[in-house]
Amino acid sequence: MPAYHAPLKEMHFVLHDLLNLGNHYASLGFNEATPELVDAVLEEAGKFTESVIAPLNRVGDEQGCRFEQGTVSTPEGFKSAYQQYIDAGWPTLAQPEQYGGQGLPYSLNLVCAEMQSAANHAFAMYPGLSHGAQATLMAHGDDALQQRFMPKLVSGEWTGTMCLTEAHCGSDLGLLRTKAVPQEDGSYRLSGSKIFISSGDHDLAENIVHIVIARIEGAPAGTKGISLFLVPKLAVGDAGEIAGPNGVSCGAIEHKMGINGNATCVINFDDATGYLLGEPNRGLNAMFTFMNAARVGVATEGVAAAEASFQGALAYARERLQMRSLSGPKCPEKAADPIIVHPDVRRMLLTQKAIAEGGRAMVYEMATWVDVTKSASASAEAKQRASDRLSLLTPIAKAFLTEMGFEATSLGVQVFGGHGYVSEWGMEQLMRDTKISCLYEGTTGIQALDLLARKVLGSRGALLESYCTELGQWWMTQPIPDPLKPMQQQLLAHLQQWGELTQGIAIRAQQNPDEIGAASVDYLMFAGYVVLAHQWLKMAVAAESRRETDPDFCQSKQDTAYFVFARLLPKAASHAALAAQDSGSLMRMAEHQFR
Amino acid sequence: MPAYHAPLKEMHFVLHDLLNLGNHYASLGFNEATPELVDAVLEEAGKFTESVIAPLNRVGDEQGCRFEQGTVSTPEGFKSAYQQYIDAGWPTLAQPEQYGGQGLPYSLNLVCAEMQSAANHAFAMYPGLSHGAQATLMAHGDDALQQRFMPKLVSGEWTGTMCLTEAHCGSDLGLLRTKAVPQEDGSYRLSGSKIFISSGDHDLAENIVHIVIARIEGAPAGTKGISLFLVPKLAVGDAGEIAGPNGVSCGAIEHKMGINGNATCVINFDDATGYLLGEPNRGLNAMFTFMNAARVGVATEGVAAAEASFQGALAYARERLQMRSLSGPKCPEKAADPIIVHPDVRRMLLTQKAIAEGGRAMVYEMATWVDVTKSASASAEAKQRASDRLSLLTPIAKAFLTEMGFEATSLGVQVFGGHGYVSEWGMEQLMRDTKISCLYEGTTGIQALDLLARKVLGSRGALLESYCTELGQWWMTQPIPDPLKPMQQQLLAHLQQWGELTQGIAIRAQQNPDEIGAASVDYLMFAGYVVLAHQWLKMAVAAESRRETDPDFCQSKQDTAYFVFARLLPKAASHAALAAQDSGSLMRMAEHQFR
Repeated sequence: MPAYHAPLKEMHFVLHDLLNLGNHYASLGFNEATPELVDAVLEEAGKFTESVIAPLNRVGDEQGCRFEQGTVSTPEGFKSAYQQYIDAGWPTLAQPEQYGGQGLPYSLNLVCAEMQSAANHAFAMYPGLSHGAQATLMAHGDDALQQRFMPKLVSGEWTGTMCLTEAHCGSDLGLLRTKAVPQEDGSYRLSGSKIFISSGDHDLAENIVHIVIARIEGAPAGTKGISLFLVPKLAVGDAGEIAGPNGVSCGAIEHKMGINGNATCVINFDDATGYLLGEPNRGLNAMFTFMNAARVGVATEGVAAAEASFQGALAYARERLQMRSLSGPKCPEKAADPIIVHPDVRRMLLTQKAIAEGGRAMVYEMATWVDVTKSASASAEAKQRASDRLSLLTPIAKAFLTEMGFEATSLGVQVFGGHGYVSEWGMEQLMRDTKISCLYEGTTGIQALDLLARKVLGSRGALLESYCTELGQWWMTQPIPDPLKPMQQQLLAHLQQWGELTQGIAIRAQQNPDEIGAASVDYLMFAGYVVLAHQWLKMAVAAESRRETDPDFCQSKQDTAYFVFARLLPKAASHAALAAQDSGSLMRMAEHQFR
Repeated sequence: MPAYHAPLKEMHFVLHDLLNLGNHYASLGFNEATPELVDAVLEEAGKFTESVIAPLNRVGDEQGCRFEQGTVSTPEGFKSAYQQYIDAGWPTLAQPEQYGGQGLPYSLNLVCAEMQSAANHAFAMYPGLSHGAQATLMAHGDDALQQRFMPKLVSGEWTGTMCLTEAHCGSDLGLLRTKAVPQEDGSYRLSGSKIFISSGDHDLAENIVHIVIARIEGAPAGTKGISLFLVPKLAVGDAGEIAGPNGVSCGAIEHKMGINGNATCVINFDDATGYLLGEPNRGLNAMFTFMNAARVGVATEGVAAAEASFQGALAYARERLQMRSLSGPKCPEKAADPIIVHPDVRRMLLTQKAIAEGGRAMVYEMATWVDVTKSASASAEAKQRASDRLSLLTPIAKAFLTEMGFEATSLGVQVFGGHGYVSEWGMEQLMRDTKISCLYEGTTGIQALDLLARKVLGSRGALLESYCTELGQWWMTQPIPDPLKPMQQQLLAHLQQWGELTQGIAIRAQQNPDEIGAASVDYLMFAGYVVLAHQWLKMAVAAESRRETDPDFCQSKQDTAYFVFARLLPKAASHAALAAQDSGSLMRMAEHQFR
């Protein structure tokens, strides 16, 4: 099992050197979130994660959750760890002060969430989903409902879920059947069956608050008849007290590839009392708000998986003695050289490092945009800009970083050779756990359509143009050390290529909308590599200021940036070439001819 | 669980239309192996695989092997299925007639092995390893030893293993410590501990014959002091009768990512009696013979995994209704269109199909070369040519097809969305099971070094030049239907690029041997795409002759070839660009700076 160490120095670099978090928080009125407090919080979060959450990762995988007599039990140790997590106040970190939260920024919590996910993906999903449910309640619930449910959600005594999927409806929510019948008191009665509900049932909390999409009796068909509800597992009185069962039950849990410490539940609603969130039939719009935030969280899981796997692989590559360097023994006193001398092992490690650290820079920056969108003191203009950036970057980060995070964990297994396949070392669990991130909250294919169809073409290119223009101007005016200038030129060329690629697709799509689907995933991957390279160049430039005080750190960042531009960014070219092709090669085969 | 169907029509096409198996077998003196017999064997093998082996795939994964009181039990049903497998004579198919085998060609057995592996990877490994052990015994054992051990190995009553790895020595066999002490009667006593022994212990057979590498007392250090031994689990008398225990025991089994139905054992040798195979201290050379054949088998596992996952994903994509085609409803009478209408779903399915069918053509052709190398009637020249081709293509097929097979299974999960992550559907098991193929018998990195350092540069380019020249001449003289001619040009250009790429690396490697390691994996992947495209163009041309009789089949092959050249072969360019780079981006970082 690789021992997880919170990479505080790496996090500190991104937060302070890259994002200037002190200024950012001050400008948004987070007066308590001083750089010193941020560092103190992260140090404590690191300790807690390393000592309480990380040690349960393997037992969670081995034991999994048990479903007996209608209830779910979490693996040994989860309950006690979750209680410690509550006692230490971690659930409240970025939650609203009026309901007992600490009111700290979203971005600060995201850093903690990265740690938790890297240490124990399954465990981290409990607070993760709960925060998603709370955000939805805060955005769409009225005051009375918030007062009734938020305090215990904030404290972590209750947890939350998101109930979207039904057996016949995954990506296509318009097909959903769960129905809601209005009651005289303004509440609704919900009936239906939801599947794939993460954290859907468990023994960590006394109540679980489900956010459920359903169709109000008589609502229009399709996505225009979807409404959003809050449905507690146990009924809750006006004062927030538990008031008995509520027709919500867990019907089964899935046996699955990974995240075994988190039950994936069938949740049945049988005339369960629920409360409308937002307007009737506007549920899908409300869900999109939630999903964008959730997708930044899932992108962070990709980063976390890459980080955890990199830590394990790096330690192993330094210790494992096997064969001599082709350019002559590096440790002649040993029976063989450590495998880190081999160029291909370095290629794998550097790829992992590039994804973990570059992906971190990507998602932390996005988290600062979320801070802005949530801030009461930011200007409308600033909020619009942040929201536009999030719209564009969220599907890229979600799909690209989870695919690359998965690749990083697969490389981690390869570094270990056969040992990587053995559970004991923990490397294969990272692969299995993180594969879910390429699937839930919208598969890679769905993210790619969201990016290209909805965000890029849907804004007639405006979101993309604004982003690329900003980046282009930044890089043309930024003082850049000479050795990094070739990377600057490469990046500028790619930004231009991005625009041209988009125009080509837009023109083709006017003739045939299938061109969008045919180009989408390669288009997204191209974009992912470009944004990753942008982050790496930013880091290489920012690291310059540490050249005197921490030359190894500076060199490491700049050498990794060099690797990214030399060995990863070229893959963007192949994705661009594929995205530039028409759909013929995909569409010409008749369905019955596939075999 | 996707129901596995042996793709007999596909197999038939490759064997007869592409490889002209009737002629091939006749020319090697396999007089019984007529086209009719081949078809009859494959039909029976398909039935047996579908009805006996496939149904145990999931139970094998769920139950796994159990290790209790020093012995290993296989999952429920394995024992009975293996007995049926023996009773039907399947183990004997391509084994030597003098020991009870049917003497049919290696290539015919490989087709059966593909079926078994696709249906149940873990089960297929029992006969797979056993055939490897028999091949080693036939190649290096003397007559007496063969007579003593072969009959029961051939019948399948006993099985075999290969014992190479030790805890501290995986790829670097020179580090091995297991020692062999010569006895007066010519036998040896072996002591040591081997790990990762697939099929190392089980309850399917009454005895297990281990092929073991060890160091004879006083042998030179490193790879020059390695000898090869046969060590039975239970001692065997001169007449082949079992004669009690032999100091061989299973110390533990690994918990691992997949192939749970096959125990991966620690095997301890404690003064166990063994018999030398071949010359003392020449064991590594002998192992290489075995490993080349074994690696063709592992490459086939990649094909098998892609095939199984494609079958599952295709069926699902035709049934699952979700969203409308962007170019307008295709099934307006249904609630949504089947997901096969979406271009990106087609991209995933076609990728799977391209790997399964193109990879099949690749490994079957290689199997015909193995037939030649094993044939008594082939000319020395023909044998040399076959052996040269195998040397070059084996690492390519092993690494490229297992990496692509893994990718295919991952795409299969993506086609299913969240359902792909759930065990019930069987798609995630395919991923977990086939990941081992990227690791055992030499990781992808090891194959890449074998290809570039040993095979290509080690022959001063001769093996590659001979292969590319033959391919180039074939494609320049082959009559090609007009619509396929652009592919012909693309392929010829890639063959030329292959040579240029190699020359560039050879020149750089003279200055710095690390250039080989730095280029190796991308070089191998480039080669893999080129060979895959070559096979697809061959199939597209060959399919022409079925245009009248089976137009759908012909069109499917040609459209898939079009897809391969349009959407997969361009990835070769990016690998070539990376392989053409110098090692600087990998080697400049000091080891302590990785973090």
